[in-house]
Amino acid sequence: MDNLYNDILSANNEYSSKFDKSDLEMPPARKLAILTCMDARLDPMRFAGLSLGDAHIVRNAGGRASDDAIRSLVISHRLLGTNEWFIIHHSDCGMETFKNEEMHNILAESSTSESIEGKFINWLTIEDQKSSVIDDVTRIRNHILVPDEISIYGFIFDVKTGELNEVKEASEIGLS
Amino acid sequence: MDNLYNDILSANNEYSSKFDKSDLEMPPARKLAILTCMDARLDPMRFAGLSLGDAHIVRNAGGRASDDAIRSLVISHRLLGTNEWFIIHHSDCGMETFKNEEMHNILAESSTSESIEGKFINWLTIEDQKSSVIDDVTRIRNHILVPDEISIYGFIFDVKTGELNEVKEASEIGLS
Repeated sequence: MDNLYNDILSANNEYSSKFDKSDLEMPPARKLAILTCMDARLDPMRFAGLSLGDAHIVRNAGGRASDDAIRSLVISHRLLGTNEWFIIHHSDCGMETFKNEEMHNILAESSTSESIEGKFINWLTIEDQKSSVIDDVTRIRNHILVPDEISIYGFIFDVKTGELNEVKEASEIGLS
Repeated sequence: MDNLYNDILSANNEYSSKFDKSDLEMPPARKLAILTCMDARLDPMRFAGLSLGDAHIVRNAGGRASDDAIRSLVISHRLLGTNEWFIIHHSDCGMETFKNEEMHNILAESSTSESIEGKFINWLTIEDQKSSVIDDVTRIRNHILVPDEISIYGFIFDVKTGELNEVKEASEIGLS
């Protein structure tokens, strides 16, 4: 058990000792879902001004509209009533720093089996933030399990300024 | 543009006007990644006592070890150096309230094409929290792209108390 493990458990003791949100209900109070990147510099609840219980937050490498992100969003809407979705990529994203081929090379340094396994994965890297937001909003907007009445917005979060900047073309596609 | 959209942009103006974290680096400072549920009642940074820049946070419906979550975790380790992973499911999870078949029925009420599409998706529902944590830690632990030196811990977050409770069997599997 290292320091990190102990620090987290100790911080959680502190958190639970002051916890006063036991009455929150399962469906997000503001009927909102956010899909964004796992990046450590993003705190979606804070940068969007949300309270505990307000919104579903889906995160993966890049904030990409993967099949699994769509699984989550469809559950979010059909079972728990969200009807506005914000798709948020960000500046200085790790997903812009490599391509599938470079990941294959990294894995090949470990072992042949890892290298082969890695070739069957689409790592969903990003070439250009604006295009990736538009691609992802478009994919979600046109998915057969996503009803037209859901509003979908595309944004880029700036890790240097904390600002959310809307990708307007994405909104034109995304707005119903 | 409804109230939610305007509220978020206005809250973000406030957030960015006070933003003083422009110097954070891309790799998570504490070399930590958390995989947890999208549930609105979970604020992983707060319940684990983390600061901006400390940890990758991956979230989906259930906090499940889906292929996409594994894609994200492998990128997190290989490119950005995380080496301790916390897999955190939670009490009163929406994923315990339905089975694949019920999702198929919900979608069948919309249209035949939606019903058919939905049958090709594994919704990754949960029957028992403890088992789902153990399954997910086991899947990640044994994934060919996950090196042995990564420490993996399994927890259940209690939405009524704010407490993280470790699933010990998961730790026995997960600890390297």
